[in-house]
Amino acid sequence: MKIYGDIQSGNCYKIKLLCSLLEIKHEWVPVDILAGDTANPEFLGKNPNGKIPLLELDDGRCLSESNAILNYLAAGSELLPTDTFALAKVQQWQFFEQYSHEPYIAVARFIAKYLGLPDNRRAEYEAKQTGGHKALSVMEKQLADTPYLTGDSLTTADISLYGYTHVAHEGGFDLGQYPAISAWVNRIQSLDNYIGMS
Amino acid sequence: MKIYGDIQSGNCYKIKLLCSLLEIKHEWVPVDILAGDTANPEFLGKNPNGKIPLLELDDGRCLSESNAILNYLAAGSELLPTDTFALAKVQQWQFFEQYSHEPYIAVARFIAKYLGLPDNRRAEYEAKQTGGHKALSVMEKQLADTPYLTGDSLTTADISLYGYTHVAHEGGFDLGQYPAISAWVNRIQSLDNYIGMS
Repeated sequence: MKIYGDIQSGNCYKIKLLCSLLEIKHEWVPVDILAGDTANPEFLGKNPNGKIPLLELDDGRCLSESNAILNYLAAGSELLPTDTFALAKVQQWQFFEQYSHEPYIAVARFIAKYLGLPDNRRAEYEAKQTGGHKALSVMEKQLADTPYLTGDSLTTADISLYGYTHVAHEGGFDLGQYPAISAWVNRIQSLDNYIGMS
Repeated sequence: MKIYGDIQSGNCYKIKLLCSLLEIKHEWVPVDILAGDTANPEFLGKNPNGKIPLLELDDGRCLSESNAILNYLAAGSELLPTDTFALAKVQQWQFFEQYSHEPYIAVARFIAKYLGLPDNRRAEYEAKQTGGHKALSVMEKQLADTPYLTGDSLTTADISLYGYTHVAHEGGFDLGQYPAISAWVNRIQSLDNYIGMS
C-alpha cells in the first residue's frame, strides 16, 4: 500500500497520523506539488483530479480525498463507528471540515506560512479570518459538551479536523480563545502512537 | 422526520430527490435563508453552523451536511454499497463534490441566476468557470468509462453530483461539451420516481 503525500499538508498529515495511531504499514511516497509532481500524466492516471493525498492499493486501485481515505483505512477499527447515525455524524464533521473549515484555515495558513503574506494576498487572508473563526466557534461549542467531536471517543472526524486546527495559529488564528478546542488538541497529542506534523 | 431546506438549493434538492427515489416519508420544512431563517436561535440550536439542508429525526437528533444526510438515509438500500472500498469511492466523489465542484459551479450559478451577474461579481464569476470546467472534466473522464460515478449502478455519489451538475448551465457551463455527463443526466432523469428541482 502506497500513500502519496506531502507531510506539511494537513490533508496528507491526517492520513499519516491515522496510520500511526492504528499501526497501519504503508509506503509513504513524498510528492512535491510545486515541482509539478501531481500534474504529470502518470499521477493524473492515478487521480484525474491531480491532488494529494492519494492511496494506492497493492492491486493498483486508487482512492483520493483525505477523508474518504481515513474512513477506508479506519473501517473495522474503534475509530469508525458502525452505528448508522454515529457514522453519519462522523461524515457530517468531515464535510464541514472540507467546506467550512479547510478553505478558510488551511488557505490562510498557506498564504501566511508558504507565501509570506504578500500584499496582493492580504485582503484574501483577512477575509479568511472570519470564516475560520466561525468554523472554530462551531467546533468549540461541540467540544465544550463532549471530549471528542462525535461524543466520548476518538473517531476519524477528530483526525480530519485536527489536521489543520492544530496548526491554525500559522494562519493567524489564536486557539487561546477556544479553551475546549485547546483541551481537545492536548487530548489528541496525548494518544498512544501520536505523531506530529514533522 | 423533518427536512429543513430550500428546493432551489442543489444541496437541499439532493435530499428531496433521494427521498423520492427511495420513497422515504418526511415532512419538508421550507427555509428562507435570505429572510434569516437559518440565523435565528431556534435553528442554530439544531445546527450551530447555520446551514441547510438539515435532517431532524423524530427523537430530536439532528444531522447536517447534505452528503452525510444522503448516506444516512440511503443506508441499507441499493444506493449505498456495503463493500468497504466501494463505500469509500462513494465518499471520494462526495468530498470531491463539496471541495472541487460545488464552490465553482454552485457559486457561479448563484451569482448568475440569483444575483443577476452584477458587475462587481463578474470577475469572481469568470474565475469560477475554470474550476467548474476542471470538475466537469474529471466527471466526464469517469462517466466515459462507467455509466455511474462509482461503476455500474446508481449510488448516493451520483445524487450528490447530480444536484448542481444538471443545472450547471445556469452558471454558464455548457454541458453539450460533455457527452458522457449529458448521457448520465438523461440516465438519472429516466429513473423511476425521479423528480426535478421544482
